[in-house]
Amino acid sequence: MNVYGNAVTRLIEEFGKLPGVGAKSAQRLAFYVLGMPVERAKSFAEAIVEARTGIHYCRKCQNLTDSELCPICANPRRVSGLIMVVEDPRDMAAYERTKEFQGVYHVLHGAISPMNGVSPSDIKIKELLTRIEELGDNLSEIIVATNPNIEGEATAMYLSRLLKPLGVKVSRIAHGVPVGGDLEHVDEATLSRALENRRIMD
Amino acid sequence: MNVYGNAVTRLIEEFGKLPGVGAKSAQRLAFYVLGMPVERAKSFAEAIVEARTGIHYCRKCQNLTDSELCPICANPRRVSGLIMVVEDPRDMAAYERTKEFQGVYHVLHGAISPMNGVSPSDIKIKELLTRIEELGDNLSEIIVATNPNIEGEATAMYLSRLLKPLGVKVSRIAHGVPVGGDLEHVDEATLSRALENRRIMD
Repeated sequence: MNVYGNAVTRLIEEFGKLPGVGAKSAQRLAFYVLGMPVERAKSFAEAIVEARTGIHYCRKCQNLTDSELCPICANPRRVSGLIMVVEDPRDMAAYERTKEFQGVYHVLHGAISPMNGVSPSDIKIKELLTRIEELGDNLSEIIVATNPNIEGEATAMYLSRLLKPLGVKVSRIAHGVPVGGDLEHVDEATLSRALENRRIMD
Repeated sequence: MNVYGNAVTRLIEEFGKLPGVGAKSAQRLAFYVLGMPVERAKSFAEAIVEARTGIHYCRKCQNLTDSELCPICANPRRVSGLIMVVEDPRDMAAYERTKEFQGVYHVLHGAISPMNGVSPSDIKIKELLTRIEELGDNLSEIIVATNPNIEGEATAMYLSRLLKPLGVKVSRIAHGVPVGGDLEHVDEATLSRALENRRIMD
Protein backbone atom coordinates (compact mmCIF):
# COMPACT_ATOMS: atom_id res chain seq x y z
CA MET A 1 0.00 0.00 0.00
CA ASN A 2 1.47 3.31 -1.07
CA VAL A 3 -0.58 6.17 0.36
CA TYR A 4 2.27 8.61 0.97
CA GLY A 5 4.31 8.40 -2.22
CA ASN A 6 7.56 6.59 -2.83
CA ALA A 7 10.03 8.47 -0.62
CA VAL A 8 7.99 8.09 2.57
CA THR A 9 7.00 4.50 1.76
CA ARG A 10 10.66 3.61 1.18
CA LEU A 11 11.65 5.17 4.50
CA ILE A 12 8.95 3.20 6.33
CA GLU A 13 10.21 0.04 4.62
CA GLU A 14 13.81 0.77 5.62
CA PHE A 15 12.80 1.20 9.27
CA GLY A 16 10.66 -1.94 9.04
CA LYS A 17 13.76 -3.99 8.14
CA LEU A 18 15.38 -3.19 11.49
CA PRO A 19 15.18 -5.93 14.12
CA GLY A 20 12.24 -5.65 16.49
CA VAL A 21 10.58 -2.90 14.46
CA GLY A 22 7.08 -3.90 13.31
CA ALA A 23 4.90 -2.18 10.72
CA LYS A 24 3.40 0.31 13.20
CA SER A 25 6.73 1.23 14.77
CA ALA A 26 8.30 1.65 11.35
CA GLN A 27 5.56 4.13 10.47
CA ARG A 28 5.99 5.97 13.77
CA LEU A 29 9.78 6.21 13.34
CA ALA A 30 9.47 7.37 9.74
CA PHE A 31 7.01 10.11 10.69
CA TYR A 32 9.29 11.18 13.49
CA VAL A 33 12.12 11.61 10.97
CA LEU A 34 9.78 13.53 8.64
CA GLY A 35 9.00 15.88 11.51
CA MET A 36 12.69 16.53 12.28
CA PRO A 37 14.40 19.72 11.13
CA VAL A 38 16.13 18.89 7.82
CA GLU A 39 19.56 19.37 9.40
CA ARG A 40 18.84 16.80 12.10
CA ALA A 41 17.60 14.26 9.56
CA LYS A 42 20.79 14.78 7.56
CA SER A 43 22.91 14.38 10.67
CA PHE A 44 21.13 11.09 11.46
CA ALA A 45 21.78 9.81 7.94
CA GLU A 46 25.39 10.90 8.17
CA ALA A 47 25.83 9.05 11.48
CA ILE A 48 24.67 5.84 9.78
CA VAL A 49 27.08 6.16 6.87
CA GLU A 50 30.01 7.27 9.01
CA ALA A 51 29.57 4.54 11.57
CA ARG A 52 29.14 1.84 8.96
CA THR A 53 31.96 2.90 6.66
CA GLY A 54 34.41 3.99 9.37
CA ILE A 55 34.08 0.90 11.50
CA HIS A 56 36.61 -1.94 11.92
CA TYR A 57 37.98 -4.17 14.65
CA CYS A 58 40.28 -2.74 17.32
CA ARG A 59 43.80 -4.00 16.53
CA LYS A 60 44.18 -5.33 20.08
CA CYS A 61 40.84 -6.49 21.44
CA GLN A 62 38.69 -6.83 18.28
CA ASN A 63 36.05 -4.45 19.65
CA LEU A 64 34.26 -2.42 16.98
CA THR A 65 35.77 1.04 16.69
CA ASP A 66 36.58 3.81 14.23
CA SER A 67 40.17 4.39 15.40
CA GLU A 68 43.16 2.03 15.38
CA LEU A 69 42.61 1.14 19.04
CA CYS A 70 39.24 1.24 20.78
CA PRO A 71 38.84 3.79 23.63
CA ILE A 72 39.44 1.08 26.23
CA CYS A 73 42.66 -0.33 24.75
CA ALA A 74 43.86 3.23 24.16
CA ASN A 75 43.30 4.17 27.80
CA PRO A 76 46.69 4.00 29.62
CA ARG A 77 44.97 3.59 32.99
CA ARG A 78 43.46 0.21 32.07
CA VAL A 79 45.37 -2.89 33.23
CA SER A 80 46.45 -4.47 29.94
CA GLY A 81 47.47 -7.78 31.51
CA LEU A 82 43.98 -8.52 32.83
CA ILE A 83 41.79 -9.61 29.92
CA MET A 84 38.08 -10.31 30.04
CA VAL A 85 36.95 -12.46 27.11
CA VAL A 86 33.42 -11.70 25.86
CA GLU A 87 31.36 -12.88 22.89
CA ASP A 88 30.08 -9.53 21.71
CA PRO A 89 30.96 -5.82 21.99
CA ARG A 90 27.62 -5.29 23.76
CA ASP A 91 28.67 -7.70 26.53
CA MET A 92 31.74 -5.54 26.97
CA ALA A 93 29.55 -2.43 27.16
CA ALA A 94 27.40 -4.18 29.78
CA TYR A 95 30.46 -4.85 31.97
CA GLU A 96 31.69 -1.29 31.42
CA ARG A 97 28.44 -0.01 32.90
CA THR A 98 29.33 -1.73 36.19
CA LYS A 99 32.41 0.57 36.38
CA GLU A 100 34.08 -2.27 38.34
CA PHE A 101 36.48 -3.78 35.85
CA GLN A 102 39.89 -2.15 35.47
CA GLY A 103 41.31 -4.54 32.90
CA VAL A 104 40.81 -4.77 29.15
CA TYR A 105 38.67 -6.99 26.93
CA HIS A 106 38.92 -9.45 24.11
CA VAL A 107 35.87 -9.75 21.85
CA LEU A 108 35.44 -13.18 20.25
CA HIS A 109 32.56 -12.12 17.96
CA GLY A 110 30.67 -15.32 18.63
CA ALA A 111 30.91 -18.56 20.54
CA ILE A 112 31.85 -22.08 19.52
CA SER A 113 28.74 -23.89 18.30
CA PRO A 114 29.11 -27.15 16.35
CA MET A 115 25.31 -27.10 15.88
CA ASN A 116 25.53 -23.81 13.96
CA GLY A 117 28.80 -24.69 12.27
CA VAL A 118 30.86 -22.21 14.33
CA SER A 119 34.29 -23.71 15.05
CA PRO A 120 37.10 -22.17 17.14
CA SER A 121 38.73 -20.84 13.96
CA ASP A 122 35.57 -18.83 13.14
CA ILE A 123 35.88 -16.62 16.22
CA LYS A 124 38.75 -14.38 17.38
CA ILE A 125 40.70 -17.02 19.35
CA LYS A 126 43.82 -16.84 17.16
CA GLU A 127 43.99 -13.10 17.91
CA LEU A 128 43.69 -13.83 21.63
CA LEU A 129 46.61 -16.25 21.45
CA THR A 130 48.72 -13.62 19.67
CA ARG A 131 47.90 -11.09 22.41
CA ILE A 132 48.79 -13.57 25.14
CA GLU A 133 52.09 -14.34 23.44
CA GLU A 134 52.93 -10.64 23.05
CA LEU A 135 52.09 -9.89 26.70
CA GLY A 136 54.33 -12.68 28.00
CA ASP A 137 54.94 -12.24 31.72
CA ASN A 138 52.77 -9.11 31.77
CA LEU A 139 49.63 -11.24 31.47
CA SER A 140 48.05 -11.77 34.88
CA GLU A 141 44.69 -13.43 34.16
CA ILE A 142 42.12 -14.31 31.50
CA ILE A 143 38.55 -13.96 32.79
CA VAL A 144 36.11 -15.83 30.55
CA ALA A 145 32.82 -13.93 30.46
CA THR A 146 31.11 -15.73 27.60
CA ASN A 147 27.34 -16.18 27.94
CA PRO A 148 25.97 -18.64 30.49
CA ASN A 149 24.41 -20.83 27.79
CA ILE A 150 25.57 -24.02 26.02
CA GLU A 151 27.71 -22.23 23.42
CA GLY A 152 29.21 -19.85 25.97
CA GLU A 153 30.06 -22.68 28.35
CA ALA A 154 31.58 -24.75 25.53
CA THR A 155 33.70 -21.78 24.52
CA ALA A 156 34.81 -21.21 28.13
CA MET A 157 35.77 -24.86 28.43
CA TYR A 158 37.66 -24.77 25.14
CA LEU A 159 39.61 -21.65 26.16
CA SER A 160 40.43 -23.09 29.55
CA ARG A 161 41.85 -26.28 28.00
CA LEU A 162 43.73 -24.31 25.39
CA LEU A 163 45.28 -21.73 27.72
CA LYS A 164 46.05 -23.60 30.95
CA PRO A 165 48.86 -25.68 29.35
CA LEU A 166 50.47 -22.34 28.41
CA GLY A 167 50.62 -21.49 32.12
CA VAL A 168 47.89 -18.85 31.86
CA LYS A 169 45.56 -18.25 34.82
CA VAL A 170 42.01 -18.70 33.44
CA SER A 171 38.87 -17.88 35.45
CA ARG A 172 35.14 -17.92 34.71
CA ILE A 173 32.58 -15.39 35.94
CA ALA A 174 30.37 -16.80 38.71
CA HIS A 175 26.89 -18.19 38.20
CA GLY A 176 24.29 -17.50 40.85
CA VAL A 177 20.98 -15.84 41.61
CA PRO A 178 20.63 -12.36 40.14
CA VAL A 179 20.93 -9.43 42.54
CA GLY A 180 17.50 -8.09 43.46
CA GLY A 181 15.86 -11.20 42.05
CA ASP A 182 13.16 -13.20 43.75
CA LEU A 183 14.20 -16.83 44.42
CA GLU A 184 10.76 -18.02 43.46
CA HIS A 185 11.31 -16.93 39.86
CA VAL A 186 14.84 -18.24 39.43
CA ASP A 187 15.24 -21.41 37.35
CA GLU A 188 16.49 -24.63 38.94
CA ALA A 189 19.83 -24.75 37.13
CA THR A 190 20.70 -21.29 38.45
CA LEU A 191 19.56 -22.18 41.97
CA SER A 192 21.77 -25.31 41.89
CA ARG A 193 24.73 -23.28 40.67
CA ALA A 194 24.14 -20.65 43.35
CA LEU A 195 24.16 -23.33 46.03
CA GLU A 196 27.27 -24.98 44.59
CA ASN A 197 29.13 -21.65 44.41
CA ARG A 198 28.10 -20.51 47.88
CA ARG A 199 30.63 -18.46 49.83
CA ILE A 200 31.35 -18.49 53.56
CA MET A 201 30.10 -15.24 55.10
CA ASP A 202 32.62 -13.26 57.13
CA MET B 1 30.22 6.02 28.37
CA ASN B 2 32.18 5.71 25.15
CA VAL B 3 33.43 2.16 24.72
CA TYR B 4 33.16 1.90 20.94
CA GLY B 5 34.64 5.17 19.71
CA ASN B 6 32.83 8.25 18.49
CA ALA B 7 31.18 7.06 15.27
CA VAL B 8 29.40 4.09 16.86
CA THR B 9 28.51 6.05 20.00
CA ARG B 10 27.03 8.81 17.89
CA LEU B 11 24.96 6.30 15.91
CA ILE B 12 23.64 4.75 19.13
CA GLU B 13 22.74 8.24 20.36
CA GLU B 14 20.94 9.07 17.12
CA PHE B 15 18.83 5.91 17.38
CA GLY B 16 18.21 6.65 21.06
CA LYS B 17 16.57 9.96 20.13
CA LEU B 18 13.82 8.18 18.19
CA PRO B 19 10.48 7.84 19.99
CA GLY B 20 10.02 4.58 21.89
CA VAL B 21 13.65 3.56 21.43
CA GLY B 22 15.39 3.00 24.77
CA ALA B 23 19.12 2.63 25.46
CA LYS B 24 19.18 -1.10 24.78
CA SER B 25 17.14 -0.91 21.59
CA ALA B 26 19.30 1.94 20.34
CA GLN B 27 22.37 -0.23 20.80
CA ARG B 28 20.69 -3.19 19.10
CA LEU B 29 19.61 -1.06 16.12
CA ALA B 30 23.06 0.52 15.79
CA PHE B 31 24.77 -2.87 15.80
CA TYR B 32 22.32 -4.10 13.22
CA VAL B 33 23.30 -1.20 10.96
CA LEU B 34 27.00 -1.92 11.59
CA GLY B 35 26.40 -5.49 10.46
CA MET B 36 24.68 -4.42 7.22
CA PRO B 37 26.52 -4.49 3.91
CA VAL B 38 27.89 -0.95 3.33
CA GLU B 39 25.57 -0.48 0.35
CA ARG B 40 22.48 -1.23 2.43
CA ALA B 41 23.54 1.18 5.16
CA LYS B 42 24.05 3.88 2.53
CA SER B 43 20.65 3.15 1.03
CA PHE B 44 19.05 3.48 4.48
CA ALA B 45 20.76 6.84 5.05
CA GLU B 46 19.70 8.00 1.60
CA ALA B 47 16.07 7.04 2.30
CA ILE B 48 16.13 9.30 5.37
CA VAL B 49 17.52 12.31 3.53
CA GLU B 50 15.33 11.83 0.46
CA ALA B 51 12.14 11.40 2.45
CA ARG B 52 12.87 14.35 4.72
CA THR B 53 14.03 16.78 2.03
CA GLY B 54 11.57 15.68 -0.67
CA ILE B 55 8.49 15.82 1.50
CA HIS B 56 5.70 18.41 1.50
CA TYR B 57 1.92 18.58 1.77
CA CYS B 58 -0.27 17.31 -1.05
CA ARG B 59 -1.73 20.36 -2.80
CA LYS B 60 -5.25 18.99 -2.42
CA CYS B 61 -5.54 16.94 0.77
CA GLN B 62 -2.47 18.03 2.81
CA ASN B 63 -1.24 14.45 3.11
CA LEU B 64 2.56 14.13 3.24
CA THR B 65 3.96 13.25 -0.16
CA ASP B 66 6.94 13.77 -2.46
CA SER B 67 4.91 14.63 -5.57
CA GLU B 68 2.51 17.51 -6.23
CA LEU B 69 -0.50 15.32 -5.47
CA CYS B 70 -0.42 12.35 -3.13
CA PRO B 71 -1.10 8.91 -4.68
CA ILE B 72 -4.71 8.99 -3.49
CA CYS B 73 -5.59 12.43 -4.86
CA ALA B 74 -3.78 11.53 -8.09
CA ASN B 75 -5.83 8.35 -8.53
CA PRO B 76 -8.65 9.09 -11.03
CA ARG B 77 -10.70 6.17 -9.67
CA ARG B 78 -11.19 7.82 -6.27
CA VAL B 79 -14.42 9.75 -5.71
CA SER B 80 -13.19 13.32 -5.28
CA GLY B 81 -16.50 14.64 -3.93
CA LEU B 82 -16.48 12.32 -0.91
CA ILE B 83 -13.97 13.64 1.61
CA MET B 84 -12.94 11.95 4.84
CA VAL B 85 -11.39 14.42 7.27
CA VAL B 86 -8.64 12.93 9.49
CA GLU B 87 -6.20 14.41 11.99
CA ASP B 88 -3.05 12.68 10.82
CA PRO B 89 -1.69 10.97 7.67
CA ARG B 90 -1.43 7.77 9.70
CA ASP B 91 -5.20 7.80 10.35
CA MET B 92 -5.62 7.99 6.60
CA ALA B 93 -3.28 5.02 6.15
CA ALA B 94 -5.32 3.11 8.75
CA TYR B 95 -8.54 3.69 6.76
CA GLU B 96 -6.78 2.77 3.53
CA ARG B 97 -5.96 -0.60 5.03
CA THR B 98 -9.69 -1.34 5.30
CA LYS B 99 -9.86 -1.07 1.46
CA GLU B 100 -13.48 0.07 1.98
CA PHE B 101 -13.33 3.79 1.35
CA GLN B 102 -13.55 4.97 -2.26
CA GLY B 103 -13.41 8.70 -1.58
CA VAL B 104 -10.48 11.00 -0.82
CA TYR B 105 -9.11 12.49 2.38
CA HIS B 106 -8.34 15.79 4.01
CA VAL B 107 -5.58 15.80 6.60
CA LEU B 108 -5.97 18.46 9.30
CA HIS B 109 -2.55 17.86 10.89
CA GLY B 110 -3.94 18.14 14.38
CA ALA B 111 -7.16 18.76 16.24
CA ILE B 112 -8.59 21.82 17.93
CA SER B 113 -7.38 21.94 21.52
CA PRO B 114 -7.74 25.16 23.52
CA MET B 115 -5.85 23.41 26.35
CA ASN B 116 -2.79 22.99 24.13
CA GLY B 117 -3.27 26.31 22.38
CA VAL B 118 -4.35 24.75 19.08
CA SER B 119 -7.03 26.91 17.48
CA PRO B 120 -8.95 26.24 14.22
CA SER B 121 -6.49 28.44 12.33
CA ASP B 122 -3.58 26.21 13.39
CA ILE B 123 -4.88 23.19 11.50
CA LYS B 124 -5.74 22.75 7.81
CA ILE B 125 -9.37 23.93 7.99
CA LYS B 126 -8.88 26.90 5.66
CA GLU B 127 -7.57 24.47 3.02
CA LEU B 128 -10.66 22.30 3.51
CA LEU B 129 -12.94 25.29 2.93
CA THR B 130 -11.08 26.15 -0.28
CA ARG B 131 -11.51 22.57 -1.50
CA ILE B 132 -15.22 22.61 -0.68
CA GLU B 133 -15.65 25.88 -2.53
CA GLU B 134 -13.77 24.58 -5.59
CA LEU B 135 -15.81 21.37 -5.68
CA GLY B 136 -19.13 23.23 -5.58
CA ASP B 137 -21.96 20.89 -6.55
CA ASN B 138 -19.50 18.01 -7.03
CA LEU B 139 -19.13 17.67 -3.25
CA SER B 140 -21.35 14.91 -1.91
CA GLU B 141 -20.31 14.48 1.73
CA ILE B 142 -17.73 15.32 4.37
CA ILE B 143 -17.11 12.39 6.74
CA VAL B 144 -15.41 13.55 9.92
CA ALA B 145 -13.04 10.82 11.14
CA THR B 146 -11.14 12.76 13.78
CA ASN B 147 -10.12 10.76 16.87
CA PRO B 148 -12.81 9.69 19.36
CA ASN B 149 -11.26 11.80 22.16
CA ILE B 150 -12.04 15.31 23.50
CA GLU B 151 -9.98 17.16 20.88
CA GLY B 152 -11.28 15.03 18.04
CA GLU B 153 -14.90 15.47 19.13
CA ALA B 154 -14.44 19.21 19.54
CA THR B 155 -12.98 19.41 16.05
CA ALA B 156 -15.85 17.34 14.63
CA MET B 157 -18.37 19.63 16.32
CA TYR B 158 -16.58 22.73 15.03
CA LEU B 159 -16.51 21.42 11.46
CA SER B 160 -20.16 20.44 11.59
CA ARG B 161 -21.21 23.94 12.76
CA LEU B 162 -18.95 25.55 10.19
CA LEU B 163 -20.01 23.45 7.20
CA LYS B 164 -23.72 22.79 7.67
CA PRO B 165 -24.71 26.43 7.04
CA LEU B 166 -22.89 26.10 3.68
CA GLY B 167 -25.34 23.32 2.79
CA VAL B 168 -22.67 20.62 3.08
CA LYS B 169 -23.66 17.12 4.25
CA VAL B 170 -21.44 16.36 7.25
CA SER B 171 -21.27 12.94 8.93
CA ARG B 172 -19.25 11.47 11.79
CA ILE B 173 -17.85 7.92 11.94
CA ALA B 174 -19.80 5.71 14.36
CA HIS B 175 -18.76 4.95 17.92
CA GLY B 176 -19.38 1.47 19.26
CA VAL B 177 -17.80 -1.69 20.58
CA PRO B 178 -14.73 -2.78 18.63
CA VAL B 179 -15.14 -5.77 16.31
CA GLY B 180 -13.79 -8.93 17.93
CA GLY B 181 -13.70 -7.21 21.29
CA ASP B 182 -14.96 -8.67 24.54
CA LEU B 183 -17.76 -6.58 26.12
CA GLU B 184 -16.28 -7.18 29.54
CA HIS B 185 -13.22 -5.11 28.64
CA VAL B 186 -14.97 -2.23 26.91
CA ASP B 187 -15.21 1.04 28.85
CA GLU B 188 -18.59 2.41 29.94
CA ALA B 189 -18.62 5.43 27.66
CA THR B 190 -18.14 3.17 24.63
CA LEU B 191 -20.83 0.78 25.85
CA SER B 192 -23.27 3.69 26.25
CA ARG B 193 -22.46 4.96 22.76
CA ALA B 194 -22.88 1.49 21.31
CA LEU B 195 -26.34 1.22 22.89
CA GLU B 196 -27.32 4.71 21.75
CA ASN B 197 -26.18 4.02 18.17
CA ARG B 198 -27.82 0.59 17.97
CA ARG B 199 -29.23 -0.44 14.58
CA ILE B 200 -32.34 -2.44 13.82
CA MET B 201 -31.33 -5.85 12.49
CA ASP B 202 -32.79 -6.90 9.15
